[in-house]
Amino acid sequence: MATHKLLLLPGDGIGPEVMGEVKRLIDWLNSAGIARFETDTGLVGGSAYDAHKVSISEGDMAKAKDADAVIFGAVGGPKWDAVPYEVRPEAGLLRLRKDLALFANLRPAVCYPALADASSLKRDAIEGLDIVIVRELTGGVYFGEPKTITDLGNGQKRAIDTQVYDTYEIERIGRVAFELARKRKNKVTSMEKRNVMKSGVLWNEVMTQVHKREYLDVTLEHQLADSGGMMLVKWPKQFDVIVTDNLFGDMLSDIAAMLTGSLGMLPSASLGEVDVKSKKRKALYEPVHGSAPDIAGKGLANPIAMISSFGMALRYSFDMGDLADKVDAAIAAVLASGLRTADIKSEGTTAVSTTQMGEAILKEL
Amino acid sequence: MATHKLLLLPGDGIGPEVMGEVKRLIDWLNSAGIARFETDTGLVGGSAYDAHKVSISEGDMAKAKDADAVIFGAVGGPKWDAVPYEVRPEAGLLRLRKDLALFANLRPAVCYPALADASSLKRDAIEGLDIVIVRELTGGVYFGEPKTITDLGNGQKRAIDTQVYDTYEIERIGRVAFELARKRKNKVTSMEKRNVMKSGVLWNEVMTQVHKREYLDVTLEHQLADSGGMMLVKWPKQFDVIVTDNLFGDMLSDIAAMLTGSLGMLPSASLGEVDVKSKKRKALYEPVHGSAPDIAGKGLANPIAMISSFGMALRYSFDMGDLADKVDAAIAAVLASGLRTADIKSEGTTAVSTTQMGEAILKEL
Ligand SMILES: CC(C)[C@H](C(=O)O)[C@@H](O)C(=O)O
Ligand SMILES: CC(C)[C@H](C(=O)O)[C@@H](O)C(=O)O
Repeated sequence: MATHKLLLLPGDGIGPEVMGEVKRLIDWLNSAGIARFETDTGLVGGSAYDAHKVSISEGDMAKAKDADAVIFGAVGGPKWDAVPYEVRPEAGLLRLRKDLALFANLRPAVCYPALADASSLKRDAIEGLDIVIVRELTGGVYFGEPKTITDLGNGQKRAIDTQVYDTYEIERIGRVAFELARKRKNKVTSMEKRNVMKSGVLWNEVMTQVHKREYLDVTLEHQLADSGGMMLVKWPKQFDVIVTDNLFGDMLSDIAAMLTGSLGMLPSASLGEVDVKSKKRKALYEPVHGSAPDIAGKGLANPIAMISSFGMALRYSFDMGDLADKVDAAIAAVLASGLRTADIKSEGTTAVSTTQMGEAILKEL
Repeated sequence: MATHKLLLLPGDGIGPEVMGEVKRLIDWLNSAGIARFETDTGLVGGSAYDAHKVSISEGDMAKAKDADAVIFGAVGGPKWDAVPYEVRPEAGLLRLRKDLALFANLRPAVCYPALADASSLKRDAIEGLDIVIVRELTGGVYFGEPKTITDLGNGQKRAIDTQVYDTYEIERIGRVAFELARKRKNKVTSMEKRNVMKSGVLWNEVMTQVHKREYLDVTLEHQLADSGGMMLVKWPKQFDVIVTDNLFGDMLSDIAAMLTGSLGMLPSASLGEVDVKSKKRKALYEPVHGSAPDIAGKGLANPIAMISSFGMALRYSFDMGDLADKVDAAIAAVLASGLRTADIKSEGTTAVSTTQMGEAILKEL
């Protein structure tokens, strides 16, 4: 049995609590002889700042590069609102994405049947929803230069951010979307603002070319990002795979996640290019929810998104799709049995803590 | 009685049809001696391109600068998908915004009680919703330079868009939001991505300063634009006035509009600075919905957003708040009587055409 190296980066807020439940699952997989994971742990975000005055240390970056997959909790919180921009908690996550070249962010937005009523949307709009947002993650306005604030004198400052996209960056994220669509409903919707942004013009052009050249069996549709956002709110089931840039992906995937009513349940995967020789790819898995500092340390956090992110790691990094299916089934079974953490509690269900939820899922497995 | 000069720019798609109903209203106001409007008409968008190969002619730009207010329909459609970027339909609208210096875009998102069920959101999440998005409209990534596509050779191109904000631009849009809040619920929520964008850092800093210096009686809250979008979908009533930049405003205001289920009903105002001498300000009024080419020319379009935009002109440009209230009341009465255009038709209501809806509102007045 192959040994897989994992780096666990719990981060801030509820990160450590939900990571604890993944750790429990890993320990069990190891001791039951189902898999062999070697785990190491590091600091990222505010907790790294508190320890070393950086958002992630060079040592932990080296471990992340060396690992077969990084399992990431969440970063940030009001405690670090005043730290310098360069070492703010989010910088650690952005550096991991950039330095590991994790250009493809997959964010499924799935409505768990047991939770359909938790959505602010009507049941028929949301029931059975199962879409994936493929977000470009290492380009665009997140990383483009110049990115500066300049003092112009006279009390005036000028802030600049730069959105940059090259053809190859759009091509490779397009391919990820089309490949994924082939395993799903064979439909990709590309979203940009070509009516206002030159990057939108190029995005549209390159997606169209990749489609024509390599994926004519898949249906490609184009939507302006603003009307795409509207369509997502009105009738999300019209989509299957949505591909979009870093900033629109940030907005649209959060909105899609909130639509499901299952924010505490949604995982994500950030993937690099497949290495030609080793056939491996760098990868980071993280829940869509944030660090929720207001409920941290109280045993209230929902560990399902974190456990499900580890499920994505099994599927995408370790070719253990069967085991991933079992994890998903265990989560569904526990929900069907009526156990709920505070965020998804409703009448007639049983309230459980972070740990109890993790234990129940493990027992089900 | 003062004479007010209006420039009507119907534009493309359903633009001319819905503008026809505003024209009907203006003619009646004139002939009944309630107001004195002098109207002129121009071309913008695809219709200007078809006539003159530009998105708006210099002659019409001059008329727009000379008018007391511009009443704008909608632009764009697949017919012009292949025209050069510089003369695409949207360029006409963007030039009007920029050259008239219409930096403040007010987009109310109101749920008409009679239409609460048209929303994809549950009734309790949306009933009684009444918020305003204040969007910065002449800065940011819409107009920043460089904005280019460069050929790098080897089949590679590079697209660049630039987000630029200066202190004064953030200050003045902040003031618009705070002033508006004083007439409403005294609360402003500012949205940006300070954790990723330098423009977000400056935006946050300047909003905080303007608040401290001039508006301590108003509550100011800050939200990251992505979580703000989520909160909007989850429980929009937690907001009152939202202030945000050009691109986030584009996304968030469309989403807010769709939440209400009343997209065909929502007006917007784009305002310039008040001139110190004349006390006048340049202004453009337009519906939030687009040109809807698929239903153009069929008498199916809902003219309410357009009529209601003209109502905003009465209020903000001509100090006729009472008349504007009457227009709003007439719209509400017609809806309560059960008349509906196709977009908002539901069981037990009466289907009417664009013209019939316009006539009914006029009769009510
Ligand atoms: C934490 C933050 C930097 C991040 C982003 O903006 O990408 C987050 O919102 C996300 O979507 O993963
Ligand atoms: C038509 C387009 C240029 C415009 C924009 O992006 O601002 C529209 O979407 C809007 O919101 O008014």
